[in-house]
Amino acid sequence: MALVVMKFGGTSVGDAERMRTVADYIARTVRRGNQVVVAVSAMGKETDELLHLAAQVSNTHPGREMDMLITAGERKAMALLCMALHDIGIESASFTGSQAGIITDCEHTKAKILEVRADRVREALAAGQVAVVGGAQGVSTDREVTFLGRGGTDTTAVALARALDADSCEIYTDVSGVFTADPRVVPEARRLKRLSFEEMLEMCAAGCPKPAMRSVEFARNHQVRLHVRSAFTWEPGTWIEEEDPEVEQAIISAVTSDSSEAKVTVAGVPDHPGVAARLFRALADRSINVDMIEQNVSLAGTTDISFTVPREDLKTACETAEGLKVEIEAREVLADPDIATVSLIGAGMKTHPGISATMFETLANEGINIEMISTSSIRLTCVVRAELVDKAVVSLHRAFKLEGE
Amino acid sequence: MALVVMKFGGTSVGDAERMRTVADYIARTVRRGNQVVVAVSAMGKETDELLHLAAQVSNTHPGREMDMLITAGERKAMALLCMALHDIGIESASFTGSQAGIITDCEHTKAKILEVRADRVREALAAGQVAVVGGAQGVSTDREVTFLGRGGTDTTAVALARALDADSCEIYTDVSGVFTADPRVVPEARRLKRLSFEEMLEMCAAGCPKPAMRSVEFARNHQVRLHVRSAFTWEPGTWIEEEDPEVEQAIISAVTSDSSEAKVTVAGVPDHPGVAARLFRALADRSINVDMIEQNVSLAGTTDISFTVPREDLKTACETAEGLKVEIEAREVLADPDIATVSLIGAGMKTHPGISATMFETLANEGINIEMISTSSIRLTCVVRAELVDKAVVSLHRAFKLEGE
Repeated sequence: MALVVMKFGGTSVGDAERMRTVADYIARTVRRGNQVVVAVSAMGKETDELLHLAAQVSNTHPGREMDMLITAGERKAMALLCMALHDIGIESASFTGSQAGIITDCEHTKAKILEVRADRVREALAAGQVAVVGGAQGVSTDREVTFLGRGGTDTTAVALARALDADSCEIYTDVSGVFTADPRVVPEARRLKRLSFEEMLEMCAAGCPKPAMRSVEFARNHQVRLHVRSAFTWEPGTWIEEEDPEVEQAIISAVTSDSSEAKVTVAGVPDHPGVAARLFRALADRSINVDMIEQNVSLAGTTDISFTVPREDLKTACETAEGLKVEIEAREVLADPDIATVSLIGAGMKTHPGISATMFETLANEGINIEMISTSSIRLTCVVRAELVDKAVVSLHRAFKLEGE
Repeated sequence: MALVVMKFGGTSVGDAERMRTVADYIARTVRRGNQVVVAVSAMGKETDELLHLAAQVSNTHPGREMDMLITAGERKAMALLCMALHDIGIESASFTGSQAGIITDCEHTKAKILEVRADRVREALAAGQVAVVGGAQGVSTDREVTFLGRGGTDTTAVALARALDADSCEIYTDVSGVFTADPRVVPEARRLKRLSFEEMLEMCAAGCPKPAMRSVEFARNHQVRLHVRSAFTWEPGTWIEEEDPEVEQAIISAVTSDSSEAKVTVAGVPDHPGVAARLFRALADRSINVDMIEQNVSLAGTTDISFTVPREDLKTACETAEGLKVEIEAREVLADPDIATVSLIGAGMKTHPGISATMFETLANEGINIEMISTSSIRLTCVVRAELVDKAVVSLHRAFKLEGE
């Protein structure tokens, strides 16, 4: 008898029919002799609707009350899923994050799990029930209801899998796994059978939307194997697990892209110590998450500093830089919203030289100019014009022969 | 400094604007130097929408999960109300029934309050906050989330008022108090300044829709004065309190009507012991709430038994009676959905003879036939044709001069 933790996202339980489809699948899993714990998100767009309601009622959104509001979404979903299970003869019980013993810190709207005291979940399993836990929620050490943030249901699932020593943690979503590239961009993209935690984390950072990065970090830190798969086709998906040193790594696993960032260039600053520190401290003070940073070679005693930020922070970032213009003696601040990043991810990259040369040649052959470059041991990222990013992904996918088995 | 418990129903907080209006009123009350505890219902028709969703997802509705689902409604409302309060500078904290220490029995969907351990509410008040409690919910002695049933927010308010020894318990609703008759039927109906618990209970039983009968029972049992008033006009409403023996009672306080019942007649049953017992036991076994019962004088050894039931139970009641027809030797079972009741309520009635005579004469003068009669010490109820009930209310209101001050 295996213990399976299953996570179902909002799209997977988006309406009454989807809810019954998911219940049917859980029932089949139970009838094959498995114990099942479910972590479920709010239905469809409900979280967005609750946020909209909050915006209508109030201009201020105290974290404690936002969490109380938002967690109503998962509460509805988990109760409805239990009803659907009951309808087809499967005993189950729903649990709020608090009831499931998900203990968090006190950081409302983005709480972190400190501990899982899953006694009630264990009791339910022992009584032959499916335990359905509301995703992305917990109770703080101050006894307050907390929300783990967007994508938090993945984290709930991983934390439960860890606490219960589950045999697998299955992340059911609206895609059928992790692909070598976005299949909308590269029709011949291939679903990956397995991927290391590190590769998955780099892919998350480089624009791959699922699973949630935090849950992959948590899974890596606690050695919980993840199976990312589809709640629509139900076929086996992608396993995300510890890298096996015995198995030879694929050199390149995937090509990803991210069009959510924008570039700022602070041009003509004197090339002396402290300028960059002053600039990035000011950005950090305004909670702007800077991703890539590049500084040009100094010419005639001045240099240009370019960096990327989430596009929604572009205005604030430019204002911050403009505010420092006199102090840091910059010539000008240039905003460029029309960029995108393209990244190669591969655990085998670190032992294979020449990957970057092939990447740059491939882009050059397509006439795609590289504006910034950033690397890690298993990732290579280039900033290109936004309108060329799909072309870059397609050409790199082909150049590294990712379509083959 | 007074401690005020305020209850706001679903219509009172039906949308974002109403939510802000209620917050503004609470803020004024706080700024006048009062401590405030709020019990709030789910917004508008949300409870109905949740029930509809449950019906879409599942045919079976286990009580535990229904309660988990339904209580999401008040959870949203209480969090949003706190945000609206925060917006205008009033410190507040929302509490689920469980957090507010509302301990109930384990009867899901209609739990009863056993005890209120309002420590967290007291702490919030001591910290200068408004405590906003989700209505109609609690936590059972089995640690499960429970729902108190429709109208349960009134009960939550009364229970909190009792536990906190509040100075008043204000039931804010969409009517401006309790009237001598339904103002839609009798335009000259007058708002009552005060009413005894007993009169209010009889009015609830005789068709007056607000406040919820259970909360009035709870208030009477625990001596909590209620103030039923409007969340739209904010004017003083009706006080419901212990009868003051020093004050002379109004003979008649109000005329109410109820069109939600239907009549069943089991005709031609032998007039011997056990027949009625057999019939009403069978109805009770099917959970049919019989209200009035009348048995005719025996003629030629047979009699007719008439009784009223909620109209939605009419079919089941008739089937039950039909099923017993042979056994109890009844001639026939007659269903009559087109009845209504008209009632006179008045604590002074018990010391004033002749009220029933005046009631019957008034109805007779209007050509209204009385089909059944039921009485208590402070209520007189007649069954009449449904289409004549408004006429009956108007004529009785005039006959007993209820329009005068």
